[in-house]
Amino acid sequence: MPIIAPSLLAADFLHLADECTMLNKSEAEWFHLDVMDGRFVPNISFGLPVIEQIRKTTTKVCDVHLMIVEPEKYIEAFKNAGADILSVHIEACPHLHRNIEQIKSLGMKAGVAVNPHTPICFLSDILHDIDVVNLMSVDPGFGGQKFIEFTLEKIRQLRRIIDERGLKVLIEIDGGVTLENAATIVEAGADVLIAGSTVFKSADPIGAIAQLKATT
Amino acid sequence: MPIIAPSLLAADFLHLADECTMLNKSEAEWFHLDVMDGRFVPNISFGLPVIEQIRKTTTKVCDVHLMIVEPEKYIEAFKNAGADILSVHIEACPHLHRNIEQIKSLGMKAGVAVNPHTPICFLSDILHDIDVVNLMSVDPGFGGQKFIEFTLEKIRQLRRIIDERGLKVLIEIDGGVTLENAATIVEAGADVLIAGSTVFKSADPIGAIAQLKATT
Amino acid sequence: MPIIAPSLLAADFLHLADECTMLNKSEAEWFHLDVMDGRFVPNISFGLPVIEQIRKTTTKVCDVHLMIVEPEKYIEAFKNAGADILSVHIEACPHLHRNIEQIKSLGMKAGVAVNPHTPICFLSDILHDIDVVNLMSVDPGFGGQKFIEFTLEKIRQLRRIIDERGLKVLIEIDGGVTLENAATIVEAGADVLIAGSTVFKSADPIGAIAQLKATT
Amino acid sequence: MPIIAPSLLAADFLHLADECTMLNKSEAEWFHLDVMDGRFVPNISFGLPVIEQIRKTTTKVCDVHLMIVEPEKYIEAFKNAGADILSVHIEACPHLHRNIEQIKSLGMKAGVAVNPHTPICFLSDILHDIDVVNLMSVDPGFGGQKFIEFTLEKIRQLRRIIDERGLKVLIEIDGGVTLENAATIVEAGADVLIAGSTVFKSADPIGAIAQLKATT
Amino acid sequence: MPIIAPSLLAADFLHLADECTMLNKSEAEWFHLDVMDGRFVPNISFGLPVIEQIRKTTTKVCDVHLMIVEPEKYIEAFKNAGADILSVHIEACPHLHRNIEQIKSLGMKAGVAVNPHTPICFLSDILHDIDVVNLMSVDPGFGGQKFIEFTLEKIRQLRRIIDERGLKVLIEIDGGVTLENAATIVEAGADVLIAGSTVFKSADPIGAIAQLKATT
Amino acid sequence: MPIIAPSLLAADFLHLADECTMLNKSEAEWFHLDVMDGRFVPNISFGLPVIEQIRKTTTKVCDVHLMIVEPEKYIEAFKNAGADILSVHIEACPHLHRNIEQIKSLGMKAGVAVNPHTPICFLSDILHDIDVVNLMSVDPGFGGQKFIEFTLEKIRQLRRIIDERGLKVLIEIDGGVTLENAATIVEAGADVLIAGSTVFKSADPIGAIAQLKATT
Repeated sequence: MPIIAPSLLAADFLHLADECTMLNKSEAEWFHLDVMDGRFVPNISFGLPVIEQIRKTTTKVCDVHLMIVEPEKYIEAFKNAGADILSVHIEACPHLHRNIEQIKSLGMKAGVAVNPHTPICFLSDILHDIDVVNLMSVDPGFGGQKFIEFTLEKIRQLRRIIDERGLKVLIEIDGGVTLENAATIVEAGADVLIAGSTVFKSADPIGAIAQLKATT
Repeated sequence: MPIIAPSLLAADFLHLADECTMLNKSEAEWFHLDVMDGRFVPNISFGLPVIEQIRKTTTKVCDVHLMIVEPEKYIEAFKNAGADILSVHIEACPHLHRNIEQIKSLGMKAGVAVNPHTPICFLSDILHDIDVVNLMSVDPGFGGQKFIEFTLEKIRQLRRIIDERGLKVLIEIDGGVTLENAATIVEAGADVLIAGSTVFKSADPIGAIAQLKATT
Repeated sequence: MPIIAPSLLAADFLHLADECTMLNKSEAEWFHLDVMDGRFVPNISFGLPVIEQIRKTTTKVCDVHLMIVEPEKYIEAFKNAGADILSVHIEACPHLHRNIEQIKSLGMKAGVAVNPHTPICFLSDILHDIDVVNLMSVDPGFGGQKFIEFTLEKIRQLRRIIDERGLKVLIEIDGGVTLENAATIVEAGADVLIAGSTVFKSADPIGAIAQLKATT
Repeated sequence: MPIIAPSLLAADFLHLADECTMLNKSEAEWFHLDVMDGRFVPNISFGLPVIEQIRKTTTKVCDVHLMIVEPEKYIEAFKNAGADILSVHIEACPHLHRNIEQIKSLGMKAGVAVNPHTPICFLSDILHDIDVVNLMSVDPGFGGQKFIEFTLEKIRQLRRIIDERGLKVLIEIDGGVTLENAATIVEAGADVLIAGSTVFKSADPIGAIAQLKATT
Repeated sequence: MPIIAPSLLAADFLHLADECTMLNKSEAEWFHLDVMDGRFVPNISFGLPVIEQIRKTTTKVCDVHLMIVEPEKYIEAFKNAGADILSVHIEACPHLHRNIEQIKSLGMKAGVAVNPHTPICFLSDILHDIDVVNLMSVDPGFGGQKFIEFTLEKIRQLRRIIDERGLKVLIEIDGGVTLENAATIVEAGADVLIAGSTVFKSADPIGAIAQLKATT
Repeated sequence: MPIIAPSLLAADFLHLADECTMLNKSEAEWFHLDVMDGRFVPNISFGLPVIEQIRKTTTKVCDVHLMIVEPEKYIEAFKNAGADILSVHIEACPHLHRNIEQIKSLGMKAGVAVNPHTPICFLSDILHDIDVVNLMSVDPGFGGQKFIEFTLEKIRQLRRIIDERGLKVLIEIDGGVTLENAATIVEAGADVLIAGSTVFKSADPIGAIAQLKATT
């Protein structure tokens, strides 16, 4: 059964306390928090002051996804804001190993996010150092996009490598995850499902999360 | 009596609907919304998806302050998100006149924000084209900072120029405005008071706004 | 027989109408147009206003090669200027999949250009989404350079992958193509030959194009 | 009588030789050449290979206006391409004095271009080092824009300073110059009129130039 | 009598200990240390590990001049390396007030360096916050350049403003200071003379310093 | 027996002449010189004026490692300063082939440096063009770091490829090399050992170099 990580990018920002209460009652293990700087991605979503407050509502895992350039400038600030897992984009990090070490030295789990066009082989020399790979199944920047089918192939490739090398890295899928395609994604080898609209635009978010969780 | 523009950077992000309802009931005429990209300023606050939802709660003026580089990339998006006034930083705009024209051509009022060290004379050739000058009385990026006293001198200089040239540009003061210094600021020539902590950290926000509004 | 795509970078800019008339009469199927921004490459060649006018002279395919950073800013403008195929550089595109989708959504064919040092395996996750790979056989930026021999090895690698995966992506070779090496290049697996000096510095450009076209 | 500097941005790029022949026959003293890099301004116009060829058609003054960032990278290349006067933007040059020295040391005249919002006082410490001020009367990047009226005030300010200091710097006006407003512009103190559409979209370009030249 | 600040950019880097011993014996009050990053200026000189060691040789004032972009990244590191005075360039600092506050909050004196083309009026709103103005009398980046005569006019302007406002800011002159022009510079109003070649290329550096010191 | 390349980043900058004399007497074949610009790496070390002087002390090979962005701006300057081998970072070079050609055309040997997370396969299309691969065994920027164990795997991979392709490229290991791990590193396939602290913090630097040299 996958870990479910609802993305608050699709939440009702006017009633975040209620949204967090709902998530706390649900089977979701992680809160997924999408930080966009308007430079790495063409959108500015939310950042430190918002996450700081969300953090106070929950003891679940806060999984922060930095869609920003020069993440080294903000890694410590996101730790202070309450991140448990912090992911940076391989496309934004000429010194990825240093960024990962910085994240881990602060006591967080470290993730690497990978854009749709970036091959899995780019991860070969960092995979053993990280806890999560965030495989983007849409181009980062906006909610509500359609799942890119080729991602399934990438999941399978990554699954194989992780298993062959005996690693414990989690595969997290980000973008276009629905009740319909969740099973296929998990079957391909995913460990964590991020879901935005599927959860928050649902008439029954707790039920939607339960359904995703029940994927086998 | 000054226009009061509470800055939601200091609001409770878990209960934005309540904060907006409070503001709607108050004497505040403007909602001040601080967008930070982590590049122009060393913080990432909130952006399009949050403002879009705040917009729906109010018919008051949404005054959006872009603390971002290359604002031309996002001017249209902030119009669509509901900005009524859009301010850009002179320090971030080598093509300030074009940015101002773009803002106005989309039907918004145009503002120029000015950092503490930037002289008033830098505004001489754009002043007649704009609706608001946002004079930063702290370094942009964080709430809760202390008012820089030299700003009073800048307000007086700008007031004199605006009056001499017979312009209707509003002077907006941003940072460290309190119940204690509001009168001095208004007396120096300010038209609009932005207030963050002073409003939202108050036990009686509506009262605090009323007090600011009553400044003469 | 390869598609021939004369590069107008080597044309006589004082008599572009004549050059276009010549190309229209020739067996060349494509007009290759090299856009350089002085940032991605160390040269500024020509751009929108020039291409707009060239477009009006021909019904042949306009194949525009963007040697620029942040191509997303200009993709729509080049569509409007008349591009039929638009190529972006993989080295300039952290969000290559989004760029390709944008190009295709505007009704153009999409290409990816690859610098001499960039391995073919970098294309693995985008190859099925595109129409053309532009394999640079010189460092982009200037005409009149010598063909880099190692490109033949890259063509063979790419040919094999395209064929094995049953794709229809065209392999386009850019830089140092001559009457002497054309056959070797086509034999290695190229589909499209770009030729600048070889065509425009020839005493008989139409004849040179015919000779290139006759390569088997 | 002003110097007339037709801007080839508005020329027919398919027949540049003819356009240059026309200019050579006309009373225009300068060829104005607008180089845009897509970074400093939101357009890519033309650059080195085009100017190199235009240069061969004329013995008139080639006045090259660099709308590019980091002009130091290209100053020598534009000298080699044939520039007689080279202007850089003050907004793009943190080391403007060095850029000007570089231009002059290569035997060119040096110009500084100034965007519409940039105050004249920014020129105070460089004015005595240069030959031309290019006062932008539209936002740089595109032809065919409307003259910004406030420019007249800037011309008068600059005229006064130049005369008071006994300098010989020429004031060049760039954007929206027409047969109708030329007299007012010259009366305000301009020395050089750049004209694009007014010349090249005219039924009688040579006549239009003559009319501009006759401005008193 | 001016403060003398020999610039170690002109020192013998093979025997820095000896050079420092010489300076310690001399009448020079400050060690001037020029840090260049290859981005703000077209040279890479020396940085943290070198300054750290120089610091250990002396109890004189270490005056560090940052010719770098984004100085906020390194202000704390230069404090730790031993800077007593830290100067940043106004042309590199969109948030100059914040940079100055950061420098002072760490217990250092704060300076602002000003390129040759930058007008003195740019300092009007920061002058009262700082300890030193570094007026560049050459374009920053290299030793051994010729003093720009116009600097004398800038010194006089700045002297007048400082005196009129009753401030204690020191005027430091950087570039091309010689035994010949020192008197004129001091007479114009300079408080601190930086000297590189004049000291270190002299046959008698201690004597040269004494001569500079004796300027009246 | 490996080539030993002591890194002067760990030297005593107050007595560089002595350090160089020591190296000249030692069995070290190369001087390794680490240039950091504060942009590519988070440190500013030393640059042209320092290297120029070091060069004069030795006839040994000067191996300059550019940890800088846009190395093309400085390649010629480092040649003039005396570099025999010049290495650039693959992560900083979208036009790596051009950079390598520029280095070689100036008569230097060319190296490519590779960060810890960058896979060896990224080198496949440039390997035959270069003389040295600098495999970073720590994140570049500081001396005194601990050797990353995974580097051994990368050495083996690279060794295999170089041998299979019959190339003569040298494998240089940079970071955390000690008397203890030198043998393992050489056994994995390294040709050149860079050593900073291990040499310069040793009580007997010449002895330490001899010991490293004796590694089999």
